[in-house]
Amino acid sequence: MFYHVKNLIHPIVDDRPDPSAANALQEGLGGQFGEMRTMMQFLFQSFNFRGDGIPYLDLIHGVAMEEISHVELVTKTISKLLDGAPGYDGGKFDTPGDSTVLDMAKEQKNPHHFIVGAQAALPVDAAGNPWSGSYVHNHGNLVLDLLDNLVLEATGRLQKSRIYQMSDNKTLRSTISFLIVRDGAHQMAFAKALETLGVDWAKILPVPKFDETQFPEVKKLMDAGVHNEAYTFSLDGSMMDQIFSGSSPANDGSELVTLKEPKESYPCPISPERPEEFAPGLDPELQKLADAFSEFKEKTLKDMEDKAGPNPRNKEI
Amino acid sequence: MFYHVKNLIHPIVDDRPDPSAANALQEGLGGQFGEMRTMMQFLFQSFNFRGDGIPYLDLIHGVAMEEISHVELVTKTISKLLDGAPGYDGGKFDTPGDSTVLDMAKEQKNPHHFIVGAQAALPVDAAGNPWSGSYVHNHGNLVLDLLDNLVLEATGRLQKSRIYQMSDNKTLRSTISFLIVRDGAHQMAFAKALETLGVDWAKILPVPKFDETQFPEVKKLMDAGVHNEAYTFSLDGSMMDQIFSGSSPANDGSELVTLKEPKESYPCPISPERPEEFAPGLDPELQKLADAFSEFKEKTLKDMEDKAGPNPRNKEI
Amino acid sequence: MFYHVKNLIHPIVDDRPDPSAANALQEGLGGQFGEMRTMMQFLFQSFNFRGDGIPYLDLIHGVAMEEISHVELVTKTISKLLDGAPGYDGGKFDTPGDSTVLDMAKEQKNPHHFIVGAQAALPVDAAGNPWSGSYVHNHGNLVLDLLDNLVLEATGRLQKSRIYQMSDNKTLRSTISFLIVRDGAHQMAFAKALETLGVDWAKILPVPKFDETQFPEVKKLMDAGVHNEAYTFSLDGSMMDQIFSGSSPANDGSELVTLKEPKESYPCPISPERPEEFAPGLDPELQKLADAFSEFKEKTLKDMEDKAGPNPRNKEI
Amino acid sequence: MFYHVKNLIHPIVDDRPDPSAANALQEGLGGQFGEMRTMMQFLFQSFNFRGDGIPYLDLIHGVAMEEISHVELVTKTISKLLDGAPGYDGGKFDTPGDSTVLDMAKEQKNPHHFIVGAQAALPVDAAGNPWSGSYVHNHGNLVLDLLDNLVLEATGRLQKSRIYQMSDNKTLRSTISFLIVRDGAHQMAFAKALETLGVDWAKILPVPKFDETQFPEVKKLMDAGVHNEAYTFSLDGSMMDQIFSGSSPANDGSELVTLKEPKESYPCPISPERPEEFAPGLDPELQKLADAFSEFKEKTLKDMEDKAGPNPRNKEI
Amino acid sequence: MFYHVKNLIHPIVDDRPDPSAANALQEGLGGQFGEMRTMMQFLFQSFNFRGDGIPYLDLIHGVAMEEISHVELVTKTISKLLDGAPGYDGGKFDTPGDSTVLDMAKEQKNPHHFIVGAQAALPVDAAGNPWSGSYVHNHGNLVLDLLDNLVLEATGRLQKSRIYQMSDNKTLRSTISFLIVRDGAHQMAFAKALETLGVDWAKILPVPKFDETQFPEVKKLMDAGVHNEAYTFSLDGSMMDQIFSGSSPANDGSELVTLKEPKESYPCPISPERPEEFAPGLDPELQKLADAFSEFKEKTLKDMEDKAGPNPRNKEI
Amino acid sequence: MFYHVKNLIHPIVDDRPDPSAANALQEGLGGQFGEMRTMMQFLFQSFNFRGDGIPYLDLIHGVAMEEISHVELVTKTISKLLDGAPGYDGGKFDTPGDSTVLDMAKEQKNPHHFIVGAQAALPVDAAGNPWSGSYVHNHGNLVLDLLDNLVLEATGRLQKSRIYQMSDNKTLRSTISFLIVRDGAHQMAFAKALETLGVDWAKILPVPKFDETQFPEVKKLMDAGVHNEAYTFSLDGSMMDQIFSGSSPANDGSELVTLKEPKESYPCPISPERPEEFAPGLDPELQKLADAFSEFKEKTLKDMEDKAGPNPRNKEI
Repeated sequence: MFYHVKNLIHPIVDDRPDPSAANALQEGLGGQFGEMRTMMQFLFQSFNFRGDGIPYLDLIHGVAMEEISHVELVTKTISKLLDGAPGYDGGKFDTPGDSTVLDMAKEQKNPHHFIVGAQAALPVDAAGNPWSGSYVHNHGNLVLDLLDNLVLEATGRLQKSRIYQMSDNKTLRSTISFLIVRDGAHQMAFAKALETLGVDWAKILPVPKFDETQFPEVKKLMDAGVHNEAYTFSLDGSMMDQIFSGSSPANDGSELVTLKEPKESYPCPISPERPEEFAPGLDPELQKLADAFSEFKEKTLKDMEDKAGPNPRNKEI
Repeated sequence: MFYHVKNLIHPIVDDRPDPSAANALQEGLGGQFGEMRTMMQFLFQSFNFRGDGIPYLDLIHGVAMEEISHVELVTKTISKLLDGAPGYDGGKFDTPGDSTVLDMAKEQKNPHHFIVGAQAALPVDAAGNPWSGSYVHNHGNLVLDLLDNLVLEATGRLQKSRIYQMSDNKTLRSTISFLIVRDGAHQMAFAKALETLGVDWAKILPVPKFDETQFPEVKKLMDAGVHNEAYTFSLDGSMMDQIFSGSSPANDGSELVTLKEPKESYPCPISPERPEEFAPGLDPELQKLADAFSEFKEKTLKDMEDKAGPNPRNKEI
Repeated sequence: MFYHVKNLIHPIVDDRPDPSAANALQEGLGGQFGEMRTMMQFLFQSFNFRGDGIPYLDLIHGVAMEEISHVELVTKTISKLLDGAPGYDGGKFDTPGDSTVLDMAKEQKNPHHFIVGAQAALPVDAAGNPWSGSYVHNHGNLVLDLLDNLVLEATGRLQKSRIYQMSDNKTLRSTISFLIVRDGAHQMAFAKALETLGVDWAKILPVPKFDETQFPEVKKLMDAGVHNEAYTFSLDGSMMDQIFSGSSPANDGSELVTLKEPKESYPCPISPERPEEFAPGLDPELQKLADAFSEFKEKTLKDMEDKAGPNPRNKEI
Repeated sequence: MFYHVKNLIHPIVDDRPDPSAANALQEGLGGQFGEMRTMMQFLFQSFNFRGDGIPYLDLIHGVAMEEISHVELVTKTISKLLDGAPGYDGGKFDTPGDSTVLDMAKEQKNPHHFIVGAQAALPVDAAGNPWSGSYVHNHGNLVLDLLDNLVLEATGRLQKSRIYQMSDNKTLRSTISFLIVRDGAHQMAFAKALETLGVDWAKILPVPKFDETQFPEVKKLMDAGVHNEAYTFSLDGSMMDQIFSGSSPANDGSELVTLKEPKESYPCPISPERPEEFAPGLDPELQKLADAFSEFKEKTLKDMEDKAGPNPRNKEI
Repeated sequence: MFYHVKNLIHPIVDDRPDPSAANALQEGLGGQFGEMRTMMQFLFQSFNFRGDGIPYLDLIHGVAMEEISHVELVTKTISKLLDGAPGYDGGKFDTPGDSTVLDMAKEQKNPHHFIVGAQAALPVDAAGNPWSGSYVHNHGNLVLDLLDNLVLEATGRLQKSRIYQMSDNKTLRSTISFLIVRDGAHQMAFAKALETLGVDWAKILPVPKFDETQFPEVKKLMDAGVHNEAYTFSLDGSMMDQIFSGSSPANDGSELVTLKEPKESYPCPISPERPEEFAPGLDPELQKLADAFSEFKEKTLKDMEDKAGPNPRNKEI
Repeated sequence: MFYHVKNLIHPIVDDRPDPSAANALQEGLGGQFGEMRTMMQFLFQSFNFRGDGIPYLDLIHGVAMEEISHVELVTKTISKLLDGAPGYDGGKFDTPGDSTVLDMAKEQKNPHHFIVGAQAALPVDAAGNPWSGSYVHNHGNLVLDLLDNLVLEATGRLQKSRIYQMSDNKTLRSTISFLIVRDGAHQMAFAKALETLGVDWAKILPVPKFDETQFPEVKKLMDAGVHNEAYTFSLDGSMMDQIFSGSSPANDGSELVTLKEPKESYPCPISPERPEEFAPGLDPELQKLADAFSEFKEKTLKDMEDKAGPNPRNKEI
């Protein structure tokens, strides 16, 4: 069973809207090697796991858990990059009338961001193809599943390193850098599992092999050791650390460490209404009904204030 | 961020293998109206949510959380229905040689259960089509998203009520009955949300409209009130109960109640090795390496014993 | 604009249910060379037609019109072949309870006929693949579109001649024979259009080349001349006959003739309720509401009686 | 069986070519919630209809009939928006030689409009994905099919209201406004059918809820009452009016009315040749053959003149 | 540029028709990890290759060349397994009339083998899904492409080892055993290439790890050393042997050897006509034309005789 | 079995990078009527061929062989058009750091060219849809397969004639002109085969019908007679010339001629490294290993020199 806290695994950094960057980032969400695939592939592998190699199961499952939070993060980053792109500034209950406020939308890489979604992330790749279940590989053979996972994480890291160079938008670069680092850590997870079966990776890892500290946001996370951590996200224990510990299979002298969860987490921003998208699209009458029913308005405002304040780590988890 | 406990939301009941039933149940997993869709649709809707209607957001998100556990449950049920279907009884490191131990596999509805997966669930529907991201509807308009979700849950309940009548296999019927009941509860969730905006559903709910207590496993769950519960699965609070409470929109006199989590949870079975599928496929040499590396064998056995014992609800969550 | 009469272009002949035959016939509906494709391909070609070659446009459009009626016919034939396959004989408002009345469904070629549809035709092919817009060819070049249409109709006739040999079910064979004959006529339509541009087809038509009078149902239709007719289905005139007239491009000495519509048409059967599919699924309460609202019951019964009587050709059309 | 008249349900308004607008409008044709889906979904639902609720059948079928005319209208609007985009002005039998007359084509949203089609509509959505049979929902349960249809029409109206704001091109806006109004009327049709079963929609309809009279073209149609009309398009009667009559489920005091067909219809424009697309691509020799064969040229010219004249409503229908 | 000889890389062994085995083998042709993918993936990687690592390019390209011959072999094996399945024994120009000679066809795993193809292989997998270009992975990063190729070949070998156990049909087992051995050799090829970059595979290869000599047909090929050979299929040289030589990365003491082509090749059988499929479907009149035109009949017969004789290795290549 | 020589069938002409032209050309590679389809369709037709019409088999197979070389040519042309588009000029082992060197990539028609591939051709069409096995038509009926092939080649020629007008880039126009000419020759091949069965094509061929000599690159090839040649690419004989000889079915007085292979062939360029794509992505350490292992560097350089020299036709083939 699965539980949730309303924090993000990485902050959403503020910058200008950039629909082209949003579309490039879709590859990291709904692409063949994006976060939706890693999440579903590792979940299927752990649900269908055979045999008593529990540490291997717990390793795959722990990475799967993090990938759900990645889907959450990337979705919110894409929405942020799209949000406000048309620059409409009408009131909450105004409708744009005959102005062409969405004029730019039909020129974008994927008009679906504005026609099908309300300036929101979609389960598609950067070329507009919907995500497919055929992306999920779960061969059932442990060695092969580990090798396949290694290739998957390496491809994720490669594609994200390419996307990094496509825009200096801070919203994009903050999230993409975090993913480069975490895809690297997950490469190490599956490489280390194969090391327990005898493989020596010498100097080929991580893929791609380059000086990633030239990307400043990546360097900052590596300086904090984020590239050598893994998280169990388990409320009742895990044997993941039996594998993810000791020397890194990157053979760079660094050490791997397994934690229950990341050291930091971050508030989850609330997206504003977009009247030109009819989102959420309550008119005054319906809004009044909603308000009267639950009187949630005050509570909500208070809640938002609370959120805007410091986000102390939730103690009771 | 997401967390996990190693319990299932509903038990896996023991019965004979039944690959045809497993294939029918694939519709409930990877079908256009199956659990993978509900999970992804509600996650996308909550990640992309706009405006300050937090109770509506928390309602959608709470249901999404449960759907992940449904994917876990259905996947494990399908694997259980497939497991051992060929009846091979060789030793762990034996290989079948030139016997045709998988002879029945090529005659099954979906040979992929035996060729692509190792007698394991797949992200496809009952006709073998892979799950598609195009199934995910996230219009961004609150009223429309709620209506769409109602149709989705109603269709899920309809299809599962049809599948119930396709086999008396206890493994299948236990899980499918639980899903019929929970899809009904989720119908109520979205119907109730529309009720707060003024709609009166009269007597059309739930869809399909029939005396579901004629399915004994369903009756037992309804007697326990499971069809009127919703769960937040949240570790830091939720406003879901502002909507999911009071009289049921089925207008049958019953009352809705929101809980943090289900009252019961169940141990998660470990799937046996299937040497004829090369799953997990370690030979003696690799197995020895794995064992030597982590000495996890003893721990694992002890862990399995513990699991076989009573599964007291994990207190610290 | 499009108009409708409640008659079928060919009768639905009565025989036992046969789900495998129904599935084979799906190729003729939702297959790459089935009726959905011919309908959409010819509609797109006529909507997008360029230039003043109105007789060519009217020819393509006239065939398109007939294809919509073919989709209607094939859909109803498939439903008839599926209808009652499980043999459930409960009352209208009964529910099957814990019996496995749909047991055979999970063993069928395409379980979707019973899970997704209520023993009803689907927009898929005989292997369960959904129909795709990529099947529609509309090159814009007149000669090429005509050649493509000829290949399409020839393939339709080939596949249906193969399906004819797969079952002696009278429901199947009656409809499939009609389609063999009409696909032949449509081959002649496009071949004749190319003849006007100089091509001489010698003896290669129709494709496939065989003595189709060995199929008795086909022979009967050919004896009536149905293979040499085309219909405009136009309420305000057509130049189709400028092309579809004179000697047949089969070069067999027969003559082509263009009519407004087929000489005969047939009553459209009403499909019975299937309670085990929850179709239509009104319970007594909802049924009463529906009846009370419109008092349509009596009118409906009378209407059904009228339909069961002789179906005199609607004069006012 | 189906019949045709050569009139459009709404006029094609003249304006400059606009390929980006054409591409956005593709969503309304081949998108998951576009006119191809409404047409096929409602046709399948009426062909597969079970039980004696004939007024419900006639309602669904009547809307289906109109959707075929919408596909005709949208296809022709897209072609009009594409037509002449490259600005080539060679003679009918000229070929552009080595000029790059289609230079702009490779920069367009969907180059298929110029490579695969001859500046013509395609059965794809605004992101270039081909239409899929999986879009067609026909659950067989009457309440569920009606709810699904309501969601479908609401989504159509939402997406078209977004597209309206993307361009002030008059060709686009005229057609899109008509579709907004008719999708609204169809929402009322399915909502009213559910009202007969007891549902009270209060104030949530139509979806999206906004002052659509701010779109001037929409206002004009609403002033004429087009948003409260439904059409049977039946040549032999319909019980549609038993449902589609009385007060609108929008609960705005207006009244619904069922007609045989729209009060107005419009001439269907003939698309010019595009030599740079080789469409239709007859060279002088082939053109001469075509002319000699049927001497249709004079008749065609006369026919075109007739069409250019007043288009008096065809009396004999 | 590519050249061809009319020999097969492995013989087609004679046995009874077996459509289910044919369908299982489709996974090895059009499946996500089948021969069509290996062929296209390695061709794309070699066409798009960057840099001066010519031995790596030649290695990938050499394997690609063999995969084309595998597609040829598997296609012909599937056709052989399907051929004659209906048991029709009419004469060449007979048509079956109203007999149901293809009755069994509608019950097969994939009816397309008999409706769409004429008892012939299709570019689809064992669940009927068409092959997709999205299967082709060409990341452009050498280390990653090599790892991906290794996973691909390992999965091919795993799936084929499963299929081996599904039937004792000799036609199937002969071809599948050859593919198990060659997929193993190709695993070694990509593993060896990674060894040149430092990786030590210890004992994990080949995947799956089992005693494959228990499959007698596999053992025979391994005894002949076929599992340690690679072929350049190049007419103008290759540096493949710089990588594929020396000790095997299976670390079993065996040695790799690169050859221009396999030591043996085999005659390519001619498939008989299937009149019930209208294949090739010439009637006496067309057959006479074909014969008269080219008088090829005699030559053909002589050619067939030559083929039936010993197939001495073509010297001039 | 298949063999290869390292020459191209047509030269890659040098010009500036042009990603939009590259994307348009993707239609000619992975489009529904592109070279991947012709290659796979003709290969499947020849592998599945039935009966003793060997000259027809050899004709289809000979064209199939050429299509593999076309896939090679088009892939390399697309890569050439993409190569260097970002204008990065760092050193081989440099990484771009935080510069946005791939900034233009996210604005391109298909960002996959830069994210998924390393400025490389993909198996997709100009709208980004992956190639599908459903494109392959192999009906099994000889007349129908020949007609289908004729339509396929005609559509290829039509689409390429449109693409020619989209850019004056010399890299694009050289390759596209060659394909226009060869698609024309292949039209003649299948038209001639149908001529042997009696058909007279009069003046409709080739499709499209226009004065292609207005495209100067096309004219040059036609002047050399390339449009009337066919090649067997067979190392052990072919009966193709029994069909492909004598007067052209274009009925323009020209004569067809069958050769073993084209009169000219061309050196195959080596693509440079693209460090910003991490392609091939060896760092100094890995490069050193690779060099040390095989000392291939010197040989490679020499090989490149040899290639840059005159490319005398390889005599020993």
